[in-house]
Amino acid sequence: MIMRKETDFSEWYNEIVEKANLSDKRYPIKGMNVWTPYGWKIMSNIDRFIRKELDATGHDEVCFPLLIPETEFKKEKDHIKGFDSEVYWVTHAGLNELDVRLVVRPTSETAMYPMFSLWVRSHTDLPLKIYQIVNTFRYETKQTRSFIRVREIHFFESHTCHVTEEDAQRQVEEDFEILSNLMKELCIPYSLLVRTEWDKFPGAYYTVGLDTAMPNGRMLQIGSIHHYRTNFAVPYNITYEDADGEHKHVHQTTYGMSERLVGAMIGVHGDDKGLVLPPAVAPVQTVIIPILSKGNTDAVMKEAERLRDTLANAGLRVKLDDRDERPGSKFFDWELKGVPLRLEIGMRDIENNVVTFARRDDGSKGTISLHDAPDAVRVILGAIRNDMYSKAWDKQKGCAETITSTDNIPDKMLRFGWCGSEECGHRFEDDNDLKMLGTPYIPEEFDGTCIICGKRTDKVAYASRSM
Amino acid sequence: MIMRKETDFSEWYNEIVEKANLSDKRYPIKGMNVWTPYGWKIMSNIDRFIRKELDATGHDEVCFPLLIPETEFKKEKDHIKGFDSEVYWVTHAGLNELDVRLVVRPTSETAMYPMFSLWVRSHTDLPLKIYQIVNTFRYETKQTRSFIRVREIHFFESHTCHVTEEDAQRQVEEDFEILSNLMKELCIPYSLLVRTEWDKFPGAYYTVGLDTAMPNGRMLQIGSIHHYRTNFAVPYNITYEDADGEHKHVHQTTYGMSERLVGAMIGVHGDDKGLVLPPAVAPVQTVIIPILSKGNTDAVMKEAERLRDTLANAGLRVKLDDRDERPGSKFFDWELKGVPLRLEIGMRDIENNVVTFARRDDGSKGTISLHDAPDAVRVILGAIRNDMYSKAWDKQKGCAETITSTDNIPDKMLRFGWCGSEECGHRFEDDNDLKMLGTPYIPEEFDGTCIICGKRTDKVAYASRSM
Repeated sequence: MIMRKETDFSEWYNEIVEKANLSDKRYPIKGMNVWTPYGWKIMSNIDRFIRKELDATGHDEVCFPLLIPETEFKKEKDHIKGFDSEVYWVTHAGLNELDVRLVVRPTSETAMYPMFSLWVRSHTDLPLKIYQIVNTFRYETKQTRSFIRVREIHFFESHTCHVTEEDAQRQVEEDFEILSNLMKELCIPYSLLVRTEWDKFPGAYYTVGLDTAMPNGRMLQIGSIHHYRTNFAVPYNITYEDADGEHKHVHQTTYGMSERLVGAMIGVHGDDKGLVLPPAVAPVQTVIIPILSKGNTDAVMKEAERLRDTLANAGLRVKLDDRDERPGSKFFDWELKGVPLRLEIGMRDIENNVVTFARRDDGSKGTISLHDAPDAVRVILGAIRNDMYSKAWDKQKGCAETITSTDNIPDKMLRFGWCGSEECGHRFEDDNDLKMLGTPYIPEEFDGTCIICGKRTDKVAYASRSM
Repeated sequence: MIMRKETDFSEWYNEIVEKANLSDKRYPIKGMNVWTPYGWKIMSNIDRFIRKELDATGHDEVCFPLLIPETEFKKEKDHIKGFDSEVYWVTHAGLNELDVRLVVRPTSETAMYPMFSLWVRSHTDLPLKIYQIVNTFRYETKQTRSFIRVREIHFFESHTCHVTEEDAQRQVEEDFEILSNLMKELCIPYSLLVRTEWDKFPGAYYTVGLDTAMPNGRMLQIGSIHHYRTNFAVPYNITYEDADGEHKHVHQTTYGMSERLVGAMIGVHGDDKGLVLPPAVAPVQTVIIPILSKGNTDAVMKEAERLRDTLANAGLRVKLDDRDERPGSKFFDWELKGVPLRLEIGMRDIENNVVTFARRDDGSKGTISLHDAPDAVRVILGAIRNDMYSKAWDKQKGCAETITSTDNIPDKMLRFGWCGSEECGHRFEDDNDLKMLGTPYIPEEFDGTCIICGKRTDKVAYASRSM
């Protein structure tokens, strides 16, 4: 086994995915991977939180068709240019060639907006807030990587329509709150960066990228939030009648995050023993290992089963590992799988009315009282969540390095002065093989010079190598 | 409005789907409909029960890629022949033509089985029991109909591998139990009919069709269960090593049901006022209508809100309709939407410490005590479920008519003697424009003659016109 996260992140990542059996990449199409049961349970737990947050903020779940007629797809000009080289085309059905080719959804603006133009009639229909959780398809030509760069991508996309630009802006702010609630559960920190004009979503007014620092210093985009103004409403003719009988175009936003959240969790939290899962999404939150020795097998097993039932009845996701294996080998397996909390129960524990615990995140150990185990486990899981989140934030905050020259650029997230011109931005990217991540959504005070042209500027930008 | 279920089922059905806003068929590809929020909530509730039943019987949820290389798709000869004329083909990606064309999944045997051949090694890996809930695609050339005949179909498919044919047969029996539990919640009755050799699933050893009678006398296939023996294991090379070190092919089964369950629920339970939803899947299980009159508005609204909160806290899906509309117009809307139970609360109810209720299924009315409303609502919802189910079964049982000649065939489910020969079967179908549904899975005693050749037979078969 390699398992050297710090020295070879890329190999470590691939090995973790395989050994913990999160995904099977041996499917006969490169970049289209099989979600195996353990990986799919993690993703489904994430989806559950997404649904909870979106439902709570008045979004309705829908499901739009996968296929989009080329005629609809081409209505917004920047959009089609942005996706031209990376969509899959259905050209035949049965034995016939189709009159109009169909795009396999790369994202659903062009599927949804012709319907929105039928659904929205009056200002009383607004805001319209919907979302769907589906798979989306991109013909990825770069090297693929499980959860991070794949050709079939599991994701959610929310789409909203509003009467004014200001209302749409308030939606963007609500999306940040949803994001914050989600990330607390997944223990993933993030930066909010307004993408450059040449990197924003095709058709958007502006795009905020959500980036998480990976251990190799690269930034991983885990999602994005877009304000469209009326850029799609005009070509798709989405209008409403206001209170005065006047017809106006709606203002739109979207918000999306993908299975990269799984990739981010692996990268941010994993270690050389394997996965480390946040309690909220772990398929097994706590595993019970009976410590047997001669003469006490039945008594210990009975107590272990009772503990399992007590915890399960309290709504915890618990597993009793009753395999005929050494405890050490079981510890190894469950550490690899990232189970947040291990409980060990042996004869001495039972005599003392306690259970021994070991936390996966920091390795700390102790005992809890057997008679109020569910509450104690809940408290520990809460502490694990908080500690994982704050530790991850500390790393994220420390990941950016401010640079004032392009000599000896470190392989980290970079912070530097930028005059804001496309010319300087492109030159910075091309000369240094870097990607501009954009400018901070929440303004940062800065007083310096553009790293390219040397002009005085109060604008700061971020960049990194891509994953 | 038409709304005449008995006299024009087909128009009635289309109107219900549109008026209750279950699905929007104005999407620019015929037969690919948009799941609107209300319809999707119903489908998601059905999915929840499917997951519960499959998880409880040791099936693991997975998610396989949508696209299948033509090379894999063609490995089982009957299978490709069966699907040749009804699959969508991806031929291009970005600006390139693909070397190997990709099929958009019509069902997932040919996506899953190459992976099964990697996953199954030893008899200790068996049984392998997995399922997925995804959308599937058929290029339907007949007239489309929401939920019943569409081109993008939401469905679940479970796939299992076993050491012996007998183990696989036991899985089929377990599938019948799962089916029975599901149908109890959806209140949908069904027949189990072994499909004819020429109508079984392409590649199957045998297929059991699950059919529900529609009000127009036609039978709607809502799902199927297949025993494959080793028919797929051989071409896909799925083998295991038994305890003696010998390599053997696995025996396989599959079980699937689709969004036709929604269509069946509409058809079986709906009436001229609209939908009638089983409590288990209704997005709103009970709606509260405040009955206001001058001077008591605040007091009634306060009590109505308290009732809503009490019911919601007890885990019921409840809605308080506080729109500024007449109660009669609200009744109308919620009847159309099929909400199982209506609660009316006015000043007189409050004074008597009761709530007035009206059941959607049979129109019966009464009062329940306000102080134990959650329990009382639960009891009524349970009674609604039981009554809907048993009433539906009574209709299903009465739907078949035994015929002894092909003169004046009624537009119903038909029961008749059949010698079992393909020749007589085909002749019966072709001469009478009927579809053979097959022979009963649970044998029925019969002593008569083949309806075509007149030979003495103890075999009975069923047929009907198709939906």
